Amino acid sequence: MSILVVGSVAYDTVETPSGRAERVLGGSASFFAVAASYFAPVNLVGVVGDDFGEKQLEAFRGRPIDLAGLERAAGKTFHWQGRYSQDLNSRDTIRTDLNVFEFFQPKIPAAYRHSELVFLGNIDPLLQREVLAQVEKPRVVACDTMNYWITGKPAELRETLAKVDVLLINDQEARELSGEWNLVKAARAIRRMGPETLVVKKGEHGVLLFGHESCFAAPALPLETVIDPTGAGDTFAGGFLGYLASRQDINDREMRRAIVFGSVLASFTVEKFSLDRLREITLREVQERYQDFRALTHFDDHEA
Amino acid sequence: MSILVVGSVAYDTVETPSGRAERVLGGSASFFAVAASYFAPVNLVGVVGDDFGEKQLEAFRGRPIDLAGLERAAGKTFHWQGRYSQDLNSRDTIRTDLNVFEFFQPKIPAAYRHSELVFLGNIDPLLQREVLAQVEKPRVVACDTMNYWITGKPAELRETLAKVDVLLINDQEARELSGEWNLVKAARAIRRMGPETLVVKKGEHGVLLFGHESCFAAPALPLETVIDPTGAGDTFAGGFLGYLASRQDINDREMRRAIVFGSVLASFTVEKFSLDRLREITLREVQERYQDFRALTHFDDHEA
Repeated sequence: MSILVVGSVAYDTVETPSGRAERVLGGSASFFAVAASYFAPVNLVGVVGDDFGEKQLEAFRGRPIDLAGLERAAGKTFHWQGRYSQDLNSRDTIRTDLNVFEFFQPKIPAAYRHSELVFLGNIDPLLQREVLAQVEKPRVVACDTMNYWITGKPAELRETLAKVDVLLINDQEARELSGEWNLVKAARAIRRMGPETLVVKKGEHGVLLFGHESCFAAPALPLETVIDPTGAGDTFAGGFLGYLASRQDINDREMRRAIVFGSVLASFTVEKFSLDRLREITLREVQERYQDFRALTHFDDHEA
Repeated sequence: MSILVVGSVAYDTVETPSGRAERVLGGSASFFAVAASYFAPVNLVGVVGDDFGEKQLEAFRGRPIDLAGLERAAGKTFHWQGRYSQDLNSRDTIRTDLNVFEFFQPKIPAAYRHSELVFLGNIDPLLQREVLAQVEKPRVVACDTMNYWITGKPAELRETLAKVDVLLINDQEARELSGEWNLVKAARAIRRMGPETLVVKKGEHGVLLFGHESCFAAPALPLETVIDPTGAGDTFAGGFLGYLASRQDINDREMRRAIVFGSVLASFTVEKFSLDRLREITLREVQERYQDFRALTHFDDHEA
């Protein structure tokens, strides 16, 4: 199954305690697409400016990532600049230049309209709905959002959520969206808004999956070296949906494996700046780290 | 194997968003002992005042908890009063009356000196060492501490840690003790101080075990109803060491099961005030919730 992703392709300037990366490739659709491409073909829809060159496109080349939907507009590419705290647990945005992304109107190429999985990156919920209007009945619609839309466009967001199967957000967003601090109550409230499955991303504390059949908790891999957390959540989403796209059936069992593959890929992303680590790994390394997650979480049944 | 626990037995006055409990049974040794008693005999060393009556002792009766080491001193019992925030994620201490606990000098009854597992509750590290001086070569020495001792008596604490096999602390304490924000680095530094095994308690985010052989991560059970988090950490420690005391061998496999049993018991404690829930459960309920943790965390190996 192929995946359609709509989101940002950007330049990031990032400072972390490990160093600084200047105008490197970033954006939710970039991390998502490269992560998902380990498992399934990806159709990318986004926009870049005329300052976005061949060098940046290299990150996508040689992978099953279709770039027919990557629009080139007159102007500059979206640029985000941020600085992480010493403990990497928080970050300040120093500068956001939306540039061509400000007027982004996703246009879905005809060849993409039969994508079976759709990932609506974190954009205006109205635009997310316009994307859905351009595709034919996907098997799974997944969606990201953020506090900016939760508080700024609650009615629009609700209308989008009614059409979504899987919502992937962080714990703070789940609390804000539902008005419930307790995550079990928050999940119930959010699942009533539309998404049958809620995935709550908790960063270094792992992921919670609230589904139709069950609840699943996966930890994050304790890592000694974290260079740059940027893109970890989008990488997670890409690994999660990429794995699902590679399966015949999408059920509780496959959802759990998908959560772990998403966590595996995110654990690589943070090991270098930008997509540098994510791009260089092999499928074998991905599978090996899946086994590390098994070793990290496994415990036996107790004796009676 | 029997367990010796040295710690506080107290009255707690607790306010949470669910209500208020006035002068109810609390204290680290109380939660620890009742939790551990589901698996193994417990020898309790602590001190109460002359205001501590038969009614409070009921919590320990009918269980394999020996109270010969529970000293009665002239004066009042330790009393802690606290108020939790609306989200239960933080608490303010309104009042701490150490009372007889201020001059607590643990005296280990002769019958306790051969306890095979020792749990040094969160008291002055000098007193913790005096406890160890009074027992004969236990198989496992486990220990709790807190920021107050980490910053206030660092040299004393280091001397105690050199004699400890298992240290159980929360993530903030691990960071403060090691001076490392990254938990993998923190664990390495702390294990160099003495404890072969470090257990990092992360509250609603679960537990990390750093051992000789491997690292293990267990989530907390997502609970819809949390009435009072007081005592969850001590209950966890009691379930963890209680289970280990019931085993022939103490190895990585049993440590993992012990972490889960500790998490199971802690998940019950928070469902009511004081020890009310912890006291009323059956071993069967404990075992059933162990299976809930299996369901929560299980994922299959992926296909090649």
